[in-house]
Amino acid sequence: MTALSLDQASVIVDGALKYARENGLKPLAIAVLDARGAQKFFLAQDGTSLKRGEIALGKANGAIALGVGPRTLNKMALERPHFINGVALSVGGPVVPVPGGALIRDPGGNLIGVVGISGDTSDNDEAAALAGIAAAGLTAETGG
Amino acid sequence: MTALSLDQASVIVDGALKYARENGLKPLAIAVLDARGAQKFFLAQDGTSLKRGEIALGKANGAIALGVGPRTLNKMALERPHFINGVALSVGGPVVPVPGGALIRDPGGNLIGVVGISGDTSDNDEAAALAGIAAAGLTAETGG
Amino acid sequence: MTALSLDQASVIVDGALKYARENGLKPLAIAVLDARGAQKFFLAQDGTSLKRGEIALGKANGAIALGVGPRTLNKMALERPHFINGVALSVGGPVVPVPGGALIRDPGGNLIGVVGISGDTSDNDEAAALAGIAAAGLTAETGG
Amino acid sequence: MTALSLDQASVIVDGALKYARENGLKPLAIAVLDARGAQKFFLAQDGTSLKRGEIALGKANGAIALGVGPRTLNKMALERPHFINGVALSVGGPVVPVPGGALIRDPGGNLIGVVGISGDTSDNDEAAALAGIAAAGLTAETGG
Repeated sequence: MTALSLDQASVIVDGALKYARENGLKPLAIAVLDARGAQKFFLAQDGTSLKRGEIALGKANGAIALGVGPRTLNKMALERPHFINGVALSVGGPVVPVPGGALIRDPGGNLIGVVGISGDTSDNDEAAALAGIAAAGLTAETGG
Repeated sequence: MTALSLDQASVIVDGALKYARENGLKPLAIAVLDARGAQKFFLAQDGTSLKRGEIALGKANGAIALGVGPRTLNKMALERPHFINGVALSVGGPVVPVPGGALIRDPGGNLIGVVGISGDTSDNDEAAALAGIAAAGLTAETGG
Repeated sequence: MTALSLDQASVIVDGALKYARENGLKPLAIAVLDARGAQKFFLAQDGTSLKRGEIALGKANGAIALGVGPRTLNKMALERPHFINGVALSVGGPVVPVPGGALIRDPGGNLIGVVGISGDTSDNDEAAALAGIAAAGLTAETGG
Repeated sequence: MTALSLDQASVIVDGALKYARENGLKPLAIAVLDARGAQKFFLAQDGTSLKRGEIALGKANGAIALGVGPRTLNKMALERPHFINGVALSVGGPVVPVPGGALIRDPGGNLIGVVGISGDTSDNDEAAALAGIAAAGLTAETGG
């Protein structure tokens, strides 16, 4: 298993910011966690609301906790809200089960981290995450 | 009341693993708690996600907390979500109110522990738990 | 009050990393919070331990919580441990009352954020924070 | 980085139990976490007290959180109790800063997990951990 490097995380965040700028997205909070669930990189653009960062972190933390993409977590929450509510109360840290990020896999398919973004629509947040992961030459898994 | 012994817990876990192997289940986290709610045995197979263990523990902890099988807890969460949410916030430790385990009773009917499993579907997780408890010559209570 | 901008936070972090590189510090986690206590910027260099980020965040969060520099918080913890322990249990989020960061003030003396760093000795962590804040043309308050 | 396998964790626990049996140790709780801080293997021998497992988990969790051996954490707690108290309140999960376990490194020196044991004296707990890690052909780091 390769560890997600700070250089890779920086490229992911820069790629997401570039996408946001070119597409006129609202101010974003962007969180990148490694495979341990530890924060590797985080930033909040000017104008983000007080707890916007927790939403971004919650998308990332929830996905890596269960090893599924944020869209899958969203679907699970719709189908079995009591299960995902239990998960949110049980795994530690924020859990926000909606789209807006992706698991990060290395070329060998190993899970090496996760991105969570919040600030614009869930779809736009996700598009920014995908742009960032592609910029780093890594594979994104949004689930579905 | 007989106490759940480490030997019994080992037989339960081995029986669950045997079932999982023979039926091609995904990697499992398996938690066995004694009648006090204390962890007696836990293992996570290779490939389990970051917080899979907390899900298994949450199934077991929630069931022993109220003294009902996981299926009963699941039903309660569907019928009275505010109650089980309050329980989850109140009892300490993880609570995940879905099937995938069983209370363990001795031949006299005494509650001596609980098994929680997570990794495959809830039904398959439960089937592995039942196989393990049967291998130990004990009685499983899944609720319903 | 001027708000701490993402540009300023980036300059602070880059300045701290430059100091760390030039002085051979161990891998650092660097956290910058704004005046609301919201994360503005965070990164963990390659090789940081699992919860190193929480230590950096705890230095920053504790200082901004009480509006005192980390050295003052450290002194308070030594003189009145029951008080700082109560604070840690009460304010939400991590609190680690040791040196290794600084409050950030704008040219008018307004509190606009805080830096917390962890990875090397507390003194070296603090020196990196001071280098970063100076690079941004802002004023650091370590307390004492 | 090699991931700690369940087979390796099993060998470590069996080795610790063998040492305990041969040296007449009191009933032990034994916890093995992987590099993510996730539980890989846990068991409590018959006769362990209600929260003995949390002590074992706290030794392991505290060491992996900071990436130092339990003896180093013990020393830090003696020298700077307010620091380790802050860490304990900030990192999530139990933290018990006393000897009785060791970080686990692979032949390449990579940190792949941690063992925490509680039940007998700290020195005996540690000796059992070292016997287990040696049985798996891995390297133990107790700190000091």
